[in-house]
Amino acid sequence: MIQYPSGKARKNKQRLPTSTSNRGNALEEDINLSNQYYLAHDIAVVHKKPTPIQVVKVDYPSRNKAKITEAYYRRASTTDYNGIYNGRYLDFEAKETKNKTSFPLSSIHEHQIEHLESVIRHGAIAFFIIRFTTLDETYLVYAQDVIHFIKNHTRKSIPHKWFQKHGHMLEMSYQIPCNYLKVIKLNEEKL
Amino acid sequence: MIQYPSGKARKNKQRLPTSTSNRGNALEEDINLSNQYYLAHDIAVVHKKPTPIQVVKVDYPSRNKAKITEAYYRRASTTDYNGIYNGRYLDFEAKETKNKTSFPLSSIHEHQIEHLESVIRHGAIAFFIIRFTTLDETYLVYAQDVIHFIKNHTRKSIPHKWFQKHGHMLEMSYQIPCNYLKVIKLNEEKL
Repeated sequence: MIQYPSGKARKNKQRLPTSTSNRGNALEEDINLSNQYYLAHDIAVVHKKPTPIQVVKVDYPSRNKAKITEAYYRRASTTDYNGIYNGRYLDFEAKETKNKTSFPLSSIHEHQIEHLESVIRHGAIAFFIIRFTTLDETYLVYAQDVIHFIKNHTRKSIPHKWFQKHGHMLEMSYQIPCNYLKVIKLNEEKL
Repeated sequence: MIQYPSGKARKNKQRLPTSTSNRGNALEEDINLSNQYYLAHDIAVVHKKPTPIQVVKVDYPSRNKAKITEAYYRRASTTDYNGIYNGRYLDFEAKETKNKTSFPLSSIHEHQIEHLESVIRHGAIAFFIIRFTTLDETYLVYAQDVIHFIKNHTRKSIPHKWFQKHGHMLEMSYQIPCNYLKVIKLNEEKL
């Protein structure tokens, strides 16, 4: 194993748990940077929720310091992002795929669909941000459209063509690497 | 140290880290139960955000299992709860105090005030749920009023009397132990 200058092996940092394949990826980083821009310019307040972790054991090496020594990742019961834009509640999930021809639906969990259906009933703007990493294309697709697809098809993936038709390709800039609010704004204005 | 039937000392379970004094308390449980009721009856979708944890080391005892072996609690950058009710974005923080005469402001962090000011500008309904545990009284106070108090007083706590004047005492029932939406609903109808 290669030793890095710190003397520690980097293995643990590089290997990501399979159940949390979305953690620490480039799309997440792009969305976080975009959210920081929106926040700094008072355009919207959107945050990623912390990853849910089940803490089992905590040590107290010193009086005010709690060190967690045993914990496990839990599956999120909602989506990763929510917030407020222009008086509206926003709720979305972001996913990457290396596939070129379709997006596998296995990465969207049943309870996430239920959550999205629920917030839509209460008036949310709900969507997915899906990135085809190999094609370097990122789409915003409204949750309603994805749910409609799932309920009317038996296939386990959504073809890339469908995104070209029903999705909105996101612009990226240095300051806003994933400008999803531009799409939301345009669609809100049309209403 | 007392040994419990499991053979393990209970010390770690009882002592809570000082930085996370709000974790696992009765108020949090009451709010979670209320949120479950609201969700089950399709009244609102409100969730507690997971506690932010900084993961340092992860082991992989088996192929699909990730075991976190070193991690630390981080301070939350926003509030604990948000969601949607009747098309409106809700955002709030819950705090308990054992004090009988005042609520210490030290438990509200500067960045939480900034966050609340920010979501209010974008149209949120923002508030605090404050419980005086010794008095067994729980109040909903709008974030605007708390912020107004902080900006116009130098004292480090809000007197209990202030809550009687500016707060809304919450009803509790077996099914909804902390019925904060009743207050929100009444105030929305007045507008």
